[in-house]
Amino acid sequence: MTESFSFTHLDPSGGAQMVDVSTKTSTSREAIATALVQTTPEVIRHIEQALVKKGDVLAVARVAGIMAAKKTSELIPLCHPLALTKVTIDFTLDATLGRIALSASCRVTGPTGVEMEALTAVSVAALTIHDMCKALDPRLTINQIQLQQKTGGKSGLWHRESNTGADSND
Amino acid sequence: MTESFSFTHLDPSGGAQMVDVSTKTSTSREAIATALVQTTPEVIRHIEQALVKKGDVLAVARVAGIMAAKKTSELIPLCHPLALTKVTIDFTLDATLGRIALSASCRVTGPTGVEMEALTAVSVAALTIHDMCKALDPRLTINQIQLQQKTGGKSGLWHRESNTGADSND
Amino acid sequence: MTESFSFTHLDPSGGAQMVDVSTKTSTSREAIATALVQTTPEVIRHIEQALVKKGDVLAVARVAGIMAAKKTSELIPLCHPLALTKVTIDFTLDATLGRIALSASCRVTGPTGVEMEALTAVSVAALTIHDMCKALDPRLTINQIQLQQKTGGKSGLWHRESNTGADSND
Amino acid sequence: MTESFSFTHLDPSGGAQMVDVSTKTSTSREAIATALVQTTPEVIRHIEQALVKKGDVLAVARVAGIMAAKKTSELIPLCHPLALTKVTIDFTLDATLGRIALSASCRVTGPTGVEMEALTAVSVAALTIHDMCKALDPRLTINQIQLQQKTGGKSGLWHRESNTGADSND
Amino acid sequence: MTESFSFTHLDPSGGAQMVDVSTKTSTSREAIATALVQTTPEVIRHIEQALVKKGDVLAVARVAGIMAAKKTSELIPLCHPLALTKVTIDFTLDATLGRIALSASCRVTGPTGVEMEALTAVSVAALTIHDMCKALDPRLTINQIQLQQKTGGKSGLWHRESNTGADSND
Amino acid sequence: MTESFSFTHLDPSGGAQMVDVSTKTSTSREAIATALVQTTPEVIRHIEQALVKKGDVLAVARVAGIMAAKKTSELIPLCHPLALTKVTIDFTLDATLGRIALSASCRVTGPTGVEMEALTAVSVAALTIHDMCKALDPRLTINQIQLQQKTGGKSGLWHRESNTGADSND
Repeated sequence: MTESFSFTHLDPSGGAQMVDVSTKTSTSREAIATALVQTTPEVIRHIEQALVKKGDVLAVARVAGIMAAKKTSELIPLCHPLALTKVTIDFTLDATLGRIALSASCRVTGPTGVEMEALTAVSVAALTIHDMCKALDPRLTINQIQLQQKTGGKSGLWHRESNTGADSND
Repeated sequence: MTESFSFTHLDPSGGAQMVDVSTKTSTSREAIATALVQTTPEVIRHIEQALVKKGDVLAVARVAGIMAAKKTSELIPLCHPLALTKVTIDFTLDATLGRIALSASCRVTGPTGVEMEALTAVSVAALTIHDMCKALDPRLTINQIQLQQKTGGKSGLWHRESNTGADSND
Repeated sequence: MTESFSFTHLDPSGGAQMVDVSTKTSTSREAIATALVQTTPEVIRHIEQALVKKGDVLAVARVAGIMAAKKTSELIPLCHPLALTKVTIDFTLDATLGRIALSASCRVTGPTGVEMEALTAVSVAALTIHDMCKALDPRLTINQIQLQQKTGGKSGLWHRESNTGADSND
Repeated sequence: MTESFSFTHLDPSGGAQMVDVSTKTSTSREAIATALVQTTPEVIRHIEQALVKKGDVLAVARVAGIMAAKKTSELIPLCHPLALTKVTIDFTLDATLGRIALSASCRVTGPTGVEMEALTAVSVAALTIHDMCKALDPRLTINQIQLQQKTGGKSGLWHRESNTGADSND
Repeated sequence: MTESFSFTHLDPSGGAQMVDVSTKTSTSREAIATALVQTTPEVIRHIEQALVKKGDVLAVARVAGIMAAKKTSELIPLCHPLALTKVTIDFTLDATLGRIALSASCRVTGPTGVEMEALTAVSVAALTIHDMCKALDPRLTINQIQLQQKTGGKSGLWHRESNTGADSND
Repeated sequence: MTESFSFTHLDPSGGAQMVDVSTKTSTSREAIATALVQTTPEVIRHIEQALVKKGDVLAVARVAGIMAAKKTSELIPLCHPLALTKVTIDFTLDATLGRIALSASCRVTGPTGVEMEALTAVSVAALTIHDMCKALDPRLTINQIQLQQKTGGKSGLWHRESNTGADSND
């Protein structure tokens, strides 16, 4: 392992720290994260049916995800508090596969990125779906919580499909 | 869909509600949830190496997961507040597969279960690992957040491997 | 003023205190509170129209109110933390009067009542409607936040319409 | 309803969103909100008397309101987190009418306004008064929670008395 | 070190855990903690003088301490959430020594004690005094944050003055 | 007492306020605070021994302190919310004296200082040590919570050792 391959969240003696970003430039940054909820076709049809009669499953999950994005620095110990300027969450239902695809997009103007905010948003939105569906399908599983894209900061655009290396953390 | 196949978190007109559990018996309940963090063998070896010199990656993730379990009812809109009596989180590192298996166990004596608390604990612990490793591996993915087991309440023991049906939600 | 007419939240020297309820009996308690949002017929029609195409105004307000009920003891300094067993919030729209009537019902099994939880729920739900409608009607006003009914505890049933006296606070 | 008459907090398909303010100019903004607590002359005199012997009713309500202003983005789902630069709350007691008038003023330098912060401050301060007085007057009512004035942003000064139209939301 | 001399908050491999208290008896418990704020005689006289004209220094500190007691399990990672039934905080000013003595008393009926709640209450009350006085005396120091007494639980009464041994943690 | 010797957190009538900092310049600011945990040599040796086998006492305390720094404006009523850019916490163990020295450093770019954030960080880290050691030493005491140094803002560098006067609060 090279020198450059090190945990920025650990000081030289291994202690956790909230990394100093006070000299980093404040730029416009965005991150997109996704997740998959795997349940049964029956549950998806039930959610869709509920939507027709103004059911609230996805509405509740969306609100939960947006509010969780704002709580990211409370939940993730070494995250910096950030004044988010945008949070949106989208759901795509696939009744055949029994699956819900979640996507969250966050923005900030600041010295550090919003990857964790987007990841936290999809995670908590997915957990909220789990909560509301667990009586119907206790085997429901959340998969593929991952970063899709980030822009802004020193490293500019990073996109999951086209990048393979590291060093996305500026 | 039968009558019994309905969302307990929605009232008859589709509005979200925190379900009334005031008449349910207060019993001892436990839930175990798991998750998988998929990264690279290099990152796992780095975490292990840091452990040797008292590095903090897993310690920080463990604390984050325990504290998140206590925040579950703040994060998941329709969860009941519960006075958790136990939270533990375990990690198993597999350097060959580049993988960390997480497991959380929660207990309460109360009228409703702690599935969401255990699921929230592993999710936030995994997100914290993501945060600390994202500069090394921005492609890190969290998979298989799922309930493994629950005990207590009207339905007694539910175990993922041996149960296939629903109705775990009492 | 008689001796009995005193603030239970102030100690004899006038200092605030979280009143000792450790010797009070834990009973099943419920409270219902209401509020009125006064805006314009046009805004109400807009909310109704949004509902038809699965708009989220009331769904967001409902979630906000439920989550706020769980935060009551964080917001109201001298409130006791309580493990709420039920929170529901209902809305009635009146397009002619340009008005939304809110009602919240909370339950707990505990040594003290849930009046403040129900009042906080309707207040924050109403503030959330205000937030989402303020671009349409900055003059929107919230009125008549008040307790309608409480049951449980030493004093039993109290109902706004039929009671005029004090002493509801056990 | 015209095109311009739409909910900025809902995306085109009706889903809730935290509106993107990342391209809005950061300017100095202020908002003033008010509320009325309606109780009995006896309660007001009791609060005044307590003040004489350094009672804490209004002091507790003031602290609660200031702290609540800082929690606004946690309570109102689609509010942006803001670094408030000022919060003050004032009370005017009217023993004859049995009434307390509350006024809160908030300031920020940022891309969006502080209306909800001022409204949340007066609401929670009023709820705190309700909590401390509910044993004396369970019929206490909170009325006229409303915005009085806002300055800053694209639309400049808006004042309740002199403005009747909408479009205050920039 | 004997076997019995071990950290209950660490599992056998050294990982942090929220200790299982699910089999402990729920009893009535109380704890009293104290702290000393050391500043200058001039600052104390200033606080006293402010009190005369209904100043708020101690009132704000008292509210902060009470609210912090309710946040203990959010602040101290391995603390169990508890439904506190009482919190009081007292201040004794000594202008000659330039000192404020703080004392907090907390109660709960539960399976574990409220030592940390009482200690957190005095600590945050003292920090709040520091905040309000730091422009007058940046050298202000907080000393002797310590437990004075605890009752309830398996070990019954523990009192600082008369006990010297350990094992207070049941 | 002179005119200039007054509480900036109190308005002229003695009411608490969150001081207006909207016209203060946003500069880079840092604060360092320290505290001492006084326990027994045996407890210190036990913590050290636990460290050798990757024990978590100081790791948990460090995370708790960092997270508490981010909660400062929630805990201290009149503190302004700040977007901290750095938090670090260090521990020095002295087995002979039975003592742990804590030091926290916080940074922000903003209109007001981070003294309270650094003081809150060491206080909560010390309380967390107390929590984990209280079964071993219920007499553990926290002493000398104090500001050591602050830089930035109108008054520039203030250092505990070399300054004796007041006026550090800009």
